[in-house]
Amino acid sequence: MGSIGIVQPLSKHFEQPLPLRSGAALRDYTLVYETYGTLNDDANNAVLVCHALNAGAHVAGVHAGRERSEGWWDNLVGPGKPLDTERFFVIGVNNPGSCFGSTGPMHHNPATGRPYGADFPVVTVEDWVDAQARLIDALGIRQLAAVIGGSLGGMQAMAWTMRHPQRVRHCIAVASAPNLSAQNIAFNEVARRAIITDPDFHGGHYYAHGVVPARGLRVARMIGHITYLSDDSMAAKFGRGLRNGRLGYTTQEIEFQIESYLRHQGDKFSEYFDANTYLLITRALDYFDPAAEHGGDLAAAFAPARNNRFMIVSFTTDWRFAPERSREIVKALVDNRIAVSYAEIDALHGHDAFLLDDARYHALLRAYFERVALEASALRPVDQPPHPVAPPRAGGNAPQRPIAA
Amino acid sequence: MGSIGIVQPLSKHFEQPLPLRSGAALRDYTLVYETYGTLNDDANNAVLVCHALNAGAHVAGVHAGRERSEGWWDNLVGPGKPLDTERFFVIGVNNPGSCFGSTGPMHHNPATGRPYGADFPVVTVEDWVDAQARLIDALGIRQLAAVIGGSLGGMQAMAWTMRHPQRVRHCIAVASAPNLSAQNIAFNEVARRAIITDPDFHGGHYYAHGVVPARGLRVARMIGHITYLSDDSMAAKFGRGLRNGRLGYTTQEIEFQIESYLRHQGDKFSEYFDANTYLLITRALDYFDPAAEHGGDLAAAFAPARNNRFMIVSFTTDWRFAPERSREIVKALVDNRIAVSYAEIDALHGHDAFLLDDARYHALLRAYFERVALEASALRPVDQPPHPVAPPRAGGNAPQRPIAA
Repeated sequence: MGSIGIVQPLSKHFEQPLPLRSGAALRDYTLVYETYGTLNDDANNAVLVCHALNAGAHVAGVHAGRERSEGWWDNLVGPGKPLDTERFFVIGVNNPGSCFGSTGPMHHNPATGRPYGADFPVVTVEDWVDAQARLIDALGIRQLAAVIGGSLGGMQAMAWTMRHPQRVRHCIAVASAPNLSAQNIAFNEVARRAIITDPDFHGGHYYAHGVVPARGLRVARMIGHITYLSDDSMAAKFGRGLRNGRLGYTTQEIEFQIESYLRHQGDKFSEYFDANTYLLITRALDYFDPAAEHGGDLAAAFAPARNNRFMIVSFTTDWRFAPERSREIVKALVDNRIAVSYAEIDALHGHDAFLLDDARYHALLRAYFERVALEASALRPVDQPPHPVAPPRAGGNAPQRPIAA
Repeated sequence: MGSIGIVQPLSKHFEQPLPLRSGAALRDYTLVYETYGTLNDDANNAVLVCHALNAGAHVAGVHAGRERSEGWWDNLVGPGKPLDTERFFVIGVNNPGSCFGSTGPMHHNPATGRPYGADFPVVTVEDWVDAQARLIDALGIRQLAAVIGGSLGGMQAMAWTMRHPQRVRHCIAVASAPNLSAQNIAFNEVARRAIITDPDFHGGHYYAHGVVPARGLRVARMIGHITYLSDDSMAAKFGRGLRNGRLGYTTQEIEFQIESYLRHQGDKFSEYFDANTYLLITRALDYFDPAAEHGGDLAAAFAPARNNRFMIVSFTTDWRFAPERSREIVKALVDNRIAVSYAEIDALHGHDAFLLDDARYHALLRAYFERVALEASALRPVDQPPHPVAPPRAGGNAPQRPIAA
């Protein structure tokens, strides 16, 4: 398995406004994206990778002159890797509202002449998918071989099959959920309150004041981080270990290693992440609920996806988007007689596991993408509905408890 | 079952300094306490109730002229209630460092002439228990019939049997744990960071500035509240319900009912709770770890308690102090051949269940206290080690999965 090496971010400007679910529209906007591998002559080997909260278009490879700048899913995407760039043309795209290059709250608002700030329109998973579809148009791709994402990225992958089912064949949703639970929303809300009530937030127009609400961002990230890790992985990594070997009896200084780790994560995050983006992306998470338009019937929401095929993956220790949430998705697909493979991976690392290099998890995705690649190479004209295929057989490192329907 | 009616807080001043685990000492101090029922002639029917984070000496009854001022465990303590004040002399005491009357950070520091603020000495569960023992001395009680507490209160109840085993017969620890996990500490640390980084905190000396770090307290309380409730109870109570019936597409205003609830909880809390107390009490939680002095051997920590008897209670949906943490306590007691009854109550409400009026939970405590009362009435001189008794038999409303050893 090799590395992709140096990659260059690309960008594309869209003049046509993007209508949003809120009823508002995003005026002209720019999307930053990256591609890896080569689009074949039939343009049927493209795979779109959707990002979650804290990531962007830079999925794999490194940026020139920047140490340790590997993309956020570099362990998955590359030559010979599970999502093999020798077979697939892989696309990473940064969503509007984010702070990694595409048009976001820190950019010029043509309506006011100042940065958007809190006036950036509220964007949803569905809006992002529509924006991505325009990029796919621009790249000359009529149908994606697959769309894949973890967590919030998995929500986008699912939304593709609901909004643009003819334009994608396979959907791979990892560590995702059909919507946020009240507890999930609660954690997002606490993080938002920490940001919004930071005196440096200035109602979301802090750019003009030359400050950022770093206190709020730190607390937000610390809360998020706790929900990304499992109780067990925290116990294994930090336990009750003391930073200085003995107690100092202090309420304000660090005593435990876990405190040191969380503060460090918060500090780093507050230096590069945009507070308005944090609000926008957590709201997109809160709002995603495709069943809501169908009286709570998730199967009805997936009805347009009857010719798509799915791979749903969850992790046993993920308490943010627990396996039962993935099983809700599987059930809704099965109710539609849609081809779905499901794997529950016995991994220690909680929600974060989707980003990590777990052997069983990666073997599973490798097997699935091999099937997708074989199918693409034998593919008839793309407008014919694809034939249902059997779910992939896992190899020697088979994931535990695979359920196929 | 009747109500206790109007009760009056009492207070006692202690001139002798209280030596603390940190090596520091608390100079003279006052404890606020309340009592319910009558101490019998043998002074062997006293039950001490230990409070958790957000409570004090006011366990039961109401305060004159104050609407809805029921004590925090009024559903448990009163005439004919499970902890029956017609049989027991029940004592509630507020711990030093708290903000409900006993000497705390908002009080005069004799060393500086200003309020203690951040200079209030760091207090631990063990320090509190020692302070409580002095109050028991002052009340003329040589041996408590029982000490009971939930959560952090349960830690104090356990610490009694380790530090003053001859001075208490029964220990009832509900929804408690032998120490905090890394995840528990992590939540505490985020809450503390929210408070400490609030510009109105002023290093803990905000009293002099006429402000309180209300923003930080609100966020701290919201985080805490999420961990007190179960995912299921939040789903049942709020789900994804919208406050205004439809989405407003806003990042800063309330959309979901759960947000409204959490903000309200945070607002209320910030109006009455002291920020320095929050830091002190969460630290006392972090520090409690009786096994640590015995190389991690919890059984060794309980060795002094060989003549005590225990009732350990947990709740199935409590993810803050999950049943497996209570089972660690039970195992350590069993390893010492100490009499212990254990019940895991199938309750929806998470950690908060210990404060609620669950029929099976209350039936269990009623049965246990009946046994304690019968024993007290037949008791020999208190300095004789008590005979081991069989664990109580639960009645028709028996809790699920009782384990007795």
